[in-house]
Amino acid sequence: MSKTKVIKGGVTAPVGFKAAGVSCGIKASGKKDVAVIFSEVSAKTSAVFTTNKMAAAPVHFSRCNTRNGICQAVVTNSGNANACTGLKGEEDALEMLDKAAEALGIRSQNVIVASTGIIGIPLPMDKIKKGITGVVPLLSKEAHADAAEAIMTTDTYSKEIAVQFEFRGKTVTIGGMAKGSGMIAPNMATMLAFLTTDINICRTCLNAGLFEAVNKSFNMITVDGETSTNDMVAILANGKAGNEELILGDDDCGIFEEALNYVTTELAKMIVKDGEGITKFIEIDVKGAKTGEDAKKAAMAIANSNLVKTAFFGEDANWGRIISAIGHSMAEIDPDTIDIYFDDAQVVKDSVGVSCDEKEIDKILKKKEIKLIVDLHIGNENVTVWTCDLSHDYVNINASYRT
Amino acid sequence: MSKTKVIKGGVTAPVGFKAAGVSCGIKASGKKDVAVIFSEVSAKTSAVFTTNKMAAAPVHFSRCNTRNGICQAVVTNSGNANACTGLKGEEDALEMLDKAAEALGIRSQNVIVASTGIIGIPLPMDKIKKGITGVVPLLSKEAHADAAEAIMTTDTYSKEIAVQFEFRGKTVTIGGMAKGSGMIAPNMATMLAFLTTDINICRTCLNAGLFEAVNKSFNMITVDGETSTNDMVAILANGKAGNEELILGDDDCGIFEEALNYVTTELAKMIVKDGEGITKFIEIDVKGAKTGEDAKKAAMAIANSNLVKTAFFGEDANWGRIISAIGHSMAEIDPDTIDIYFDDAQVVKDSVGVSCDEKEIDKILKKKEIKLIVDLHIGNENVTVWTCDLSHDYVNINASYRT
Repeated sequence: MSKTKVIKGGVTAPVGFKAAGVSCGIKASGKKDVAVIFSEVSAKTSAVFTTNKMAAAPVHFSRCNTRNGICQAVVTNSGNANACTGLKGEEDALEMLDKAAEALGIRSQNVIVASTGIIGIPLPMDKIKKGITGVVPLLSKEAHADAAEAIMTTDTYSKEIAVQFEFRGKTVTIGGMAKGSGMIAPNMATMLAFLTTDINICRTCLNAGLFEAVNKSFNMITVDGETSTNDMVAILANGKAGNEELILGDDDCGIFEEALNYVTTELAKMIVKDGEGITKFIEIDVKGAKTGEDAKKAAMAIANSNLVKTAFFGEDANWGRIISAIGHSMAEIDPDTIDIYFDDAQVVKDSVGVSCDEKEIDKILKKKEIKLIVDLHIGNENVTVWTCDLSHDYVNINASYRT
Repeated sequence: MSKTKVIKGGVTAPVGFKAAGVSCGIKASGKKDVAVIFSEVSAKTSAVFTTNKMAAAPVHFSRCNTRNGICQAVVTNSGNANACTGLKGEEDALEMLDKAAEALGIRSQNVIVASTGIIGIPLPMDKIKKGITGVVPLLSKEAHADAAEAIMTTDTYSKEIAVQFEFRGKTVTIGGMAKGSGMIAPNMATMLAFLTTDINICRTCLNAGLFEAVNKSFNMITVDGETSTNDMVAILANGKAGNEELILGDDDCGIFEEALNYVTTELAKMIVKDGEGITKFIEIDVKGAKTGEDAKKAAMAIANSNLVKTAFFGEDANWGRIISAIGHSMAEIDPDTIDIYFDDAQVVKDSVGVSCDEKEIDKILKKKEIKLIVDLHIGNENVTVWTCDLSHDYVNINASYRT
C-alpha cells in the first residue's frame, strides 16, 4: 500500500461515475431499496457470480450482459432476491434492465442487474419501476452513500471505500461498495460488491485483476459457510483517468492490482465485521501448508466450525476444536507437527497443548479482534481467511428472518 | 423388520456378553466414566473409525487390534478424549489396554480401547487404572445400563437397544449402545457405538454388514457437521447363538443385515434426538437424484446449513434457505425441477413457491419431529439423513463447554 492512499467516497470517487439510491417501498421499514450506478461513458467490465446452481434470475442476465466486457450501469434492489421465482422472475429481471436502460438512455445489454433479500417471493414490479424512474434523475457524485445504503439487507451499516494512486503520470481512483451479512461464504441472500475505476485498462488485465482480488478477499471470508443464490462482484473501468492503457503483462501492473486487492479486502473484512450476530472478528492465518489449497481447506474448516465459533463467543481457549477441525478438513497435514497461537501466545506445539499464561490468553480472547495462527509445518504455503463468532444473536436473527 | 423384534436390554442381550460401568473420578460430577464390555469367548470383530486425521491415541490402537478380526473386550472412558496428548497419550492408551487385559485374563491385542471427552488434556491414569480394576469384577448381564451410562459426555440420556430374530433354527440377538452428542457428523468429542451379537458369522460378512449399516445410519446423521477425533463403531460377534455359520453371499444374509441396520439406525437417531440444544428432530428425504452421492450431498448440505437449522428452530417455513443449500451442495440438479414438502404439505413445485395453507404449515413446523422431503426429479436415487435444529442452547452448551 506504499503507493495507494485511502480517500473519502465510494463508487463515485473515480472520474465519470454517478450514483443514487431511493426507497421505492419494497422494504416495509421505508429504508432505501433501489440503487443505480452509472458511468458517463461505456466501461470495460469484469464480473464474477455465485457458484450456487440455484442462481437467481438477475444473475443469469448479468452474466450475459457482462460477457462482452462492456457495461455502463448497474441497477439493484434490496429486500427481495428475485430467486426461485420461475419464469416471472426472469421477466421481472429483464424489465428492471429495460426500465433502467430507458431512463438512462443506454442499451439494456449494457446494464448489470442485481437483487438481494428474501428468496421465493415475486418482485413488486410496480414499486420497482417507479423506483428506477425516480432514482435516475437523482444520479450525482454526492449520492454514493445513498446507493450503498440502498443495497443493504440485514447489514447494520453501509460499506464503502475509495483509494487513489498515481499511474503513468495520471491519478487513478478505485471506488467500491458492498453488502453482507449472512449467507456469507456469502443472509437470506447475499453478498454484492460493485467496484468502479477510471483507469484505462485492457479487458484481459481487468479480468485477471478482479479474479485474483476476489480470490484473496471475498472468497476468503465466511460468516456461515453458505453461498447465496445472488452473489455478484462487478467492476466497471471507464478509462477517464486518461492514462496510457494498462495491458496484461506490463511491468507496472502490480500497482493497480495492489490497489484493487486493498479495496476488495477492506470491503470483505467490512462484510465479516458486520456478520449476523458478530461479537468477535477473527483472522485465521494458516501457514506452512503443502499447497495453497490445503491451507485454505484447513483455514475454512476452522472458520466454518460451529464448535470453534461458539468457543470464541464464549471466550474459551478451546484449541481442541481447532485441531479437530483441521483434522477433518481434508487438508494434507502431519498430525504431530501443528502449532497454534492466539495472537502471539502459543497454546499448541507439535499438536500437544503447551503450558501458557492463562491470564494472558483470557485477555486475548476478551478482545473484539483476535488473530488465530496455525502453522502446519509441512510446506511453505500460507493463507488468511476472516470469520466471526457464532452468538445468540445469530440464532435470533435467523430464527425470525421472515417475521 | 418383519422378522426382527425389539427386546429389552443392550450390549449384554446376546448370549455370552457381560458389561459394567463405574465412576473412577474423571468426571468432576462423580458420574460413571469407565466401562467394559466382555465376551466369554473371543469374537469375530469388525470396526470403523473416524476419518479425522488428528485421530486420538485410542483410535490408533483399536485400529491395530481389530485388524485381524478377533477381539474379546472393549474398555472405554468418558470425560477425556486422550486426543492431542502426544507420546504420553499413546502410552496411556496402551496402559488402558494392558490393565483391562490383565484384569480380564486375556491378551491386550484382543481388547478395543476408546476415550471420549475433552481434547488435549492427559488422562488421569491413576484414576483410570483403579477404575478398570474396579469395574471388571462387576461385569454382569444386568449392568448393561451402567456401561451405556459410563460412555456419556454431554448426552442427556443413555442410548441402548437390543433386537432378536430367528436364523437357521436358532435365536440370534444383536445389542448395542452409543453416545453423541456434538461433533456429530460426529461435542467436544464424540460418537461411539458398540454392538454385540451372538450370531455365528464369517468375518467378511460381518465387515460387509457393518460397513453397509454404518453408511446408512451413523454416516447419515449430523448435529453440527463436525467429525471428531475419536469416532468409532465396533461389533463383536461371538457365535454363541449356535447357528450354522453365515457366509457372505448366503441367501438369508438379508435377515441379519436388516436387523443390524435397524439397530444402527435406531442408535443413530437416538444420537440426533439428543443433539446439543435440540428442540426439533428433522428427517430429510432427498429423492430423484441422479446418484446416491448426489442425493447425500444435497441432503447433507441442507442438514448442515445453519440458516436452515435456525429457521427450523424459529418454526419458519423458509424454503428459500433449503433450496439455496441444495444449490451450493455440488449435487447435480436441474434448477427448474425441485419439489419441497414439509411432511405432506408441498411448499415448492418446479423450484417455485406454491400457494399453501399457512395454518397447516405452521402446525407442522410446531411439531417436535418434522419430515422434509426434497424431490430433485432428475433420477431414481434416494437418501434419508437425520439432523436437528440450531438453538440458543447449542450456543450456550458450546460457549462454555470447558468451564
